[in-house]
Amino acid sequence: VSEIMSMDPRTGAIREVIGLATGTDEVDRLCTQAEEAAAELRGRPRSWRVALLRGMADALEANRDPLVATADAETALGEARLNGELTRTCFQLRLFADTVEEGGFLEATIDPAGQTPMGPRPDLRRMLVPLGPVAVFGASNFPFAFSVPGGDTASALAAGCSVVIKAHESHPATSRLCGEAMAAAASACGAPQGTIALVFGREAGADLVRHPAITAVGFTGSLGGGRALMRLIDTRPTPIPFFGELSSINPVVITEAAAADRPKEIGAGIAASAMLGAGQFCTKPGLVLVPRGDDGDMIAKTAAAAIAAEGPRVLLNAGITRSFRDRLVRDSTHPSLRTLARGSQDDESESLVTPGLFEVDLSDLDPSLTEECFGPVTLLVRYDDPADLGPAVRALPSSLTATVHTGPDEDDERLDALLKVLENGAGRLLFNGFPTGVAVSWAMHHGGGWPSSNSQHTSVGPTAIRRFLRPMCWQDTPEKFLPDELRDHFTGIPRRVNGVLTTA
Amino acid sequence: VSEIMSMDPRTGAIREVIGLATGTDEVDRLCTQAEEAAAELRGRPRSWRVALLRGMADALEANRDPLVATADAETALGEARLNGELTRTCFQLRLFADTVEEGGFLEATIDPAGQTPMGPRPDLRRMLVPLGPVAVFGASNFPFAFSVPGGDTASALAAGCSVVIKAHESHPATSRLCGEAMAAAASACGAPQGTIALVFGREAGADLVRHPAITAVGFTGSLGGGRALMRLIDTRPTPIPFFGELSSINPVVITEAAAADRPKEIGAGIAASAMLGAGQFCTKPGLVLVPRGDDGDMIAKTAAAAIAAEGPRVLLNAGITRSFRDRLVRDSTHPSLRTLARGSQDDESESLVTPGLFEVDLSDLDPSLTEECFGPVTLLVRYDDPADLGPAVRALPSSLTATVHTGPDEDDERLDALLKVLENGAGRLLFNGFPTGVAVSWAMHHGGGWPSSNSQHTSVGPTAIRRFLRPMCWQDTPEKFLPDELRDHFTGIPRRVNGVLTTA
Repeated sequence: VSEIMSMDPRTGAIREVIGLATGTDEVDRLCTQAEEAAAELRGRPRSWRVALLRGMADALEANRDPLVATADAETALGEARLNGELTRTCFQLRLFADTVEEGGFLEATIDPAGQTPMGPRPDLRRMLVPLGPVAVFGASNFPFAFSVPGGDTASALAAGCSVVIKAHESHPATSRLCGEAMAAAASACGAPQGTIALVFGREAGADLVRHPAITAVGFTGSLGGGRALMRLIDTRPTPIPFFGELSSINPVVITEAAAADRPKEIGAGIAASAMLGAGQFCTKPGLVLVPRGDDGDMIAKTAAAAIAAEGPRVLLNAGITRSFRDRLVRDSTHPSLRTLARGSQDDESESLVTPGLFEVDLSDLDPSLTEECFGPVTLLVRYDDPADLGPAVRALPSSLTATVHTGPDEDDERLDALLKVLENGAGRLLFNGFPTGVAVSWAMHHGGGWPSSNSQHTSVGPTAIRRFLRPMCWQDTPEKFLPDELRDHFTGIPRRVNGVLTTA
Repeated sequence: VSEIMSMDPRTGAIREVIGLATGTDEVDRLCTQAEEAAAELRGRPRSWRVALLRGMADALEANRDPLVATADAETALGEARLNGELTRTCFQLRLFADTVEEGGFLEATIDPAGQTPMGPRPDLRRMLVPLGPVAVFGASNFPFAFSVPGGDTASALAAGCSVVIKAHESHPATSRLCGEAMAAAASACGAPQGTIALVFGREAGADLVRHPAITAVGFTGSLGGGRALMRLIDTRPTPIPFFGELSSINPVVITEAAAADRPKEIGAGIAASAMLGAGQFCTKPGLVLVPRGDDGDMIAKTAAAAIAAEGPRVLLNAGITRSFRDRLVRDSTHPSLRTLARGSQDDESESLVTPGLFEVDLSDLDPSLTEECFGPVTLLVRYDDPADLGPAVRALPSSLTATVHTGPDEDDERLDALLKVLENGAGRLLFNGFPTGVAVSWAMHHGGGWPSSNSQHTSVGPTAIRRFLRPMCWQDTPEKFLPDELRDHFTGIPRRVNGVLTTA
């Protein structure tokens, strides 16, 4: 059994030995406990779940200082960013509490008994109910918002599920602190033992997705990691849904009109978005289509200057650092790739990498260049003819986002055709903005075609709750055995009665 | 390449050679055409889709006589049942048209730009959009309602997808006739070529789920067939969702109070439900828990008399006939199984099978007896102690339905505990009824835990549309490039604006 280490990515040193990896027997015990908890949680009223989620948000905020300090020590993301991320995480827990309170997510539906063209119909009442224990895999790059207290955990708890979370190797101490704060809040609310649990270590993650009690998996991480878990799930006697957010290059198209209108602003925006969080965002703009010519050159020049001015950066962990360096070494041998900005590799200590900006002609773009590269680098792809943009975008892998920058003198018909291609390959279409920054709101969609996700649901925002619910229909059931929300005179949530949607 | 035959299950004779199985190249051509059609369909307004669905319903009804006659010749289900099934199928197409018209399924959501605790938020607008070409696998036992013109096809078209349907071997002539009527209706509406297409043959089905243009699969059929398709899908470079409705035993629990109250009525009800459609319904009550003692004996005696009075039956096809006989031969060697009713096997010609009723003590129930047996047979399981019911139900595989019959003097506390177990293993809970008969209505849920389905969605009723949709978010998008339903002043559908749900 291996030891779980908290590492300092700034020095490469061991900060702390957290303990041993969670063994198979312990994973089994925790999953069994989560199953018992799920049976109990299912019967709790929505108001109780609301209190649980708000209690957890309060508990995390009460521990803000040690949480942010520990996360910074383990991820080098910086205290400003981590403070913001914790604020977002607590906001998210409270938004899910509001969602549970509002009740529309239940899809409560009542069709009273009556006559139909096919004969008499019984009384039918439907709503969504929790799936059961959910396995959550924390991400390296968001120690709060997509990890132990993140959106997958929040939406699973909001759905009425218990959760068993596989802590990410990059921040085990942060994960443990978050888990302790949330477990204490759960306990203070009278939650059953097993409502929330953590496991540590890669093998524990494999044990988790194979465990018969687990009913769904939420995952944010690499394509390789996601694929490996999907293969394990395929070996289960009972299939379960896997909701994965994986790999995304997030193409940005700069039209000729946009380039002519504001080349410096766009160049600076590309650099800022690509360098944010040391390029370790799933929505990093990894590929930017820029027109050939003076306007495009100005975009390239501005972005290159901004990136050249960036100092060396610490990445999240040694594995990511190694992958980033390997990828840049590989790309530097690509016959058609031009380096627009790159600090000297002499600057790089064991723990530092130098940001980069590369350029290639559209005609030389090949699949090796359209794989996501995690870290502070992006690629400008220069095009000659706007008519080539549609086919170029169509050839890219699907992404979480697709962005277009337009100018005042746009050819709307051509743009409309391009938008159709962009929409087809992405979950979120942005105009004149940059894809980093994923608002937590009702209308957000964070997901997209393979390989960016394998899901028909968002992993950010209230509707993420649908991933951990299933429909249940009660036929001719006496009122006393129905859930409150399906009883005749219940009010306070949206319901569909006799096919007609009514608000609270 | 094999020939596709229309068989007469009453005689075992070939009715007609339909043609050759669809080859790989032709499947490729049809899927490519479906992809082009999907791109076109996506841009059509909802009102057009409404007209398409209603036009298809009208076209099927205009062909009622030949459709019912052909289906009866191929399935032996009888004209009365098939007339009802066609009525249901047309009702279903029209209900999906109503669903598209109502527009709530789009989940249209608008969060205007504004301030948040995490800083400024852009304008975000979200709604569900069609996935793309959907592969549909028709079922043997519902030549209309779960086949070419069935719920999977209707919900995929309603979602704005194109469909490629694998016709079931049991009724290729019916499938062809339905496909022709629907394609003519589509053409009359100005649908693009490739909106709906059919393929024939097992290999064509395999080609279909592997084709890169296919974005989702709807399947109603056997556990083995579903498993085989899931394995094929696992080999795709790009994963796609598989919505399977597979195998279900649909347990029925008769409490002591129910047995005391109306034993004859319950016995007759069990027999009627289990024999309906020659026991070839996915919601057939395949296992009935009956108390020991005089009341339970009366239930058994009444059901046995009703089933003994049933004449020999023709099943859907030679394969189902063979499986049914093999299963009954296997069960008859089970040391603990008692035969309560079984006509002499001498009655059986090549094409006829004899209905059966078996009984076993709960203590002797084993997994070989809890697999679905497709055909006119059911199993009574006799229990001594009501306290054993919870564990007994928990040990059963999950089902589409679970039913309880209660009496006037029920122990509500004990019943409540039993309901929790029943709900956990089923998608629909019925009181004092029988599970056959699945109403097409908003509150229906047709789906359940594995192996009854692998889906978090129903395959019957308006919400089945969600299977073939994905969210899309538009950020800071000029109004002219937004879908109508997301524009500021659009009215006529439910929308969530700034988190608040508003009706049309």
